[in-house]
Amino acid sequence: MSLNPQYEEIGKGFVQQYYAIFDDPANRANVVNFYSATDSFMTFEGHQIQGAPKILEKVQSLSFQKITRVITTVDSQPTFDGGVLINVLGRLQCDDDPPHAFSQVFMLKANAGTFFVAHDIFRLNIHNSA
Amino acid sequence: MSLNPQYEEIGKGFVQQYYAIFDDPANRANVVNFYSATDSFMTFEGHQIQGAPKILEKVQSLSFQKITRVITTVDSQPTFDGGVLINVLGRLQCDDDPPHAFSQVFMLKANAGTFFVAHDIFRLNIHNSA
Repeated sequence: MSLNPQYEEIGKGFVQQYYAIFDDPANRANVVNFYSATDSFMTFEGHQIQGAPKILEKVQSLSFQKITRVITTVDSQPTFDGGVLINVLGRLQCDDDPPHAFSQVFMLKANAGTFFVAHDIFRLNIHNSA
Repeated sequence: MSLNPQYEEIGKGFVQQYYAIFDDPANRANVVNFYSATDSFMTFEGHQIQGAPKILEKVQSLSFQKITRVITTVDSQPTFDGGVLINVLGRLQCDDDPPHAFSQVFMLKANAGTFFVAHDIFRLNIHNSA
């Protein structure tokens, strides 16, 4: 396997598709289909879990309904095993909470002609005042 | 190769070591030693380059001297090829510029008992007003 020259389109396309599902409360649980049963890691606000069943549990435990999201940047890089590393920066607002900046890293791994999310690190960008 | 159980310490240790070198203007060019001559990707504020020589050129072109940096969070995950994926959030101030939030993703790849930076994505977190 080698570098996928389509990494830029794959990254942008994935991000659009992922958030369209995640941000729709009726559809949100279906993001589980992007993850592997055993080989996916998610770190959500510092809490790390592994495997689709636990990831689904986490996603279903989120209490907000509506998410309004604005993507600021999507940076993608090809990996030598045919995957794509993606860094997303943006802002989101959950229900009537105040808006927050966020960052999310996805590592897409190629598998049988498609991709799964091998790594997912999500953080709201909340910095202490110095 | 398999998951490295020390991923958390490796991630935190690397981040500390990398920024100690990068933030010291007299020492900054030595960060090039963390990258592979051919197999490292860097995306710096959306500009993508590959390989240590071009990365060194980029680092040497940066015009600021002093960097004051505060790390907010370091999230690390182990990869199945023995590497570590790291997401850093923090704030930095270059010389007398206004302080900015930043995010930086590093993918460390294991090689002959040590690690090199296979992927590096840096972004200042500047969001347009909506």
